[in-house]
Amino acid sequence: MRTIFRETLHKGLIQEIIIKKVLVDKKSQYQRIQIFDTPVYGRVLALDGIIQVTEKDESAYSEMLVHPAMQVIKNPKKVLIIGGGDGAVAEEVLKYKFIEKIDLVDIDEEVVSLSKKYFKKINNNSLKNNRVKFYFEDAYDFILTTKNKYDLIIADRPDPVGAGKSLFKEKFYKNMNNILSPLGVSVFQSGVVFLQKSETKEVIKHVKSTFKNSGIILTVVPSYIGGHMVLVWGSNKIDLSKNKIVSKREKVKTLYFNEEIRKKALCTSNLVKFL
Amino acid sequence: MRTIFRETLHKGLIQEIIIKKVLVDKKSQYQRIQIFDTPVYGRVLALDGIIQVTEKDESAYSEMLVHPAMQVIKNPKKVLIIGGGDGAVAEEVLKYKFIEKIDLVDIDEEVVSLSKKYFKKINNNSLKNNRVKFYFEDAYDFILTTKNKYDLIIADRPDPVGAGKSLFKEKFYKNMNNILSPLGVSVFQSGVVFLQKSETKEVIKHVKSTFKNSGIILTVVPSYIGGHMVLVWGSNKIDLSKNKIVSKREKVKTLYFNEEIRKKALCTSNLVKFL
Repeated sequence: MRTIFRETLHKGLIQEIIIKKVLVDKKSQYQRIQIFDTPVYGRVLALDGIIQVTEKDESAYSEMLVHPAMQVIKNPKKVLIIGGGDGAVAEEVLKYKFIEKIDLVDIDEEVVSLSKKYFKKINNNSLKNNRVKFYFEDAYDFILTTKNKYDLIIADRPDPVGAGKSLFKEKFYKNMNNILSPLGVSVFQSGVVFLQKSETKEVIKHVKSTFKNSGIILTVVPSYIGGHMVLVWGSNKIDLSKNKIVSKREKVKTLYFNEEIRKKALCTSNLVKFL
Repeated sequence: MRTIFRETLHKGLIQEIIIKKVLVDKKSQYQRIQIFDTPVYGRVLALDGIIQVTEKDESAYSEMLVHPAMQVIKNPKKVLIIGGGDGAVAEEVLKYKFIEKIDLVDIDEEVVSLSKKYFKKINNNSLKNNRVKFYFEDAYDFILTTKNKYDLIIADRPDPVGAGKSLFKEKFYKNMNNILSPLGVSVFQSGVVFLQKSETKEVIKHVKSTFKNSGIILTVVPSYIGGHMVLVWGSNKIDLSKNKIVSKREKVKTLYFNEEIRKKALCTSNLVKFL
């Protein structure tokens, strides 16, 4: 008998994926965690029935959250990752030797410990790296209370449903700005615009009103069905589309990201109306 | 009871769409034709269970097949559309007043007559326009026998399965080149690269070896699941990425296509390895 994973995130549109082998299916304190192997996407992590990361296409997501911003920030040392318990985004950040510290805030410790075991291929043991420090708590609260400042903040947040909702409030962006260093950049997962137009537009509006500069990084992640995914960035000094790549920035090895992709991905928010 | 359309085009990955109302479900001489209304994609045309066109995202497909090429061809008069019985591509071509004649070759007359009735929103009555002439026959044979030359040829062909297979043979591209005018451009639907990598690569190889210049137009059409769709173009005189837009080309009204999208969509074939 074939096992099928059925994702019903979007109203009226369902994605079904044939499963080769189920590795984990359990309930943590916060959510249902499923890890399974598939012919199409390789190994997959799903939380509460929603795909978070897949082996075959995660590079189009995690590389684009990190590298377009990292290439233009001057002298970055400290990075904050919100969510990202699978370790894929941390892996991208760790590719830069000059990064001294990554704070990773994920509410669910169980996701991190399972990802250490099952997602080495996508995180390259980033979750065991001593430059990474974990905070297993609500990211909304962490941002309110931390005394740190960060040069790059990445909101690898889930969709604006359930527990993720507070990470889409207008106040969230203001609080975020308070912990961003003056030359820093923040990047926000902002949804698949064809299916979540109002959510994406709201993020763009909030980020625009919070940071001096803002814009869009477009990417396409097949397992996040519905076409273009929008990553919104905000910064008070830097403009990702205009600032030159920092000279002597070490070259990192990537699968999806490159200079041609970088230029094509950076868009004005006007573009979103066409998508 | 909810009615669901279940598309099983790709091995291991299934798309399910909730149907609001079924309008047509019949067998023509060649294929099963389904037309139905959905909350996510609006009205949908499926042939043999595979989505061909949807109201909500067709612009990302048909506009990109036509406008990036049309903007750089000098003095185009005659256009050939292979497939395209739904009329969406013909509508885009008809936006240019200087186009004198469109030959549309679709094997199935039934698709054209049903599209006249049910897809006015996407074809704007293009199928009733007297600049459009129909040939209800196999496109492979038509290309072999026609004495015409075309300034723009658009292969709005189905996937390389079943009847569509002959439209992906190496010989098909050579025959195509024989009916292309010296300054003309041809554009080929070449699949969703994440799920059909070998097919896409094969098209690129064949087009490269047939035409003097070639390259890629990238687009993203949500209902064609799997991320980036590749349109390969071939020409013997023109280079879409380098040639300037013909001055005084009349501005056409589009939903997806614009100058920013045009520049971002034109890629070298090197890019495909990253997708």
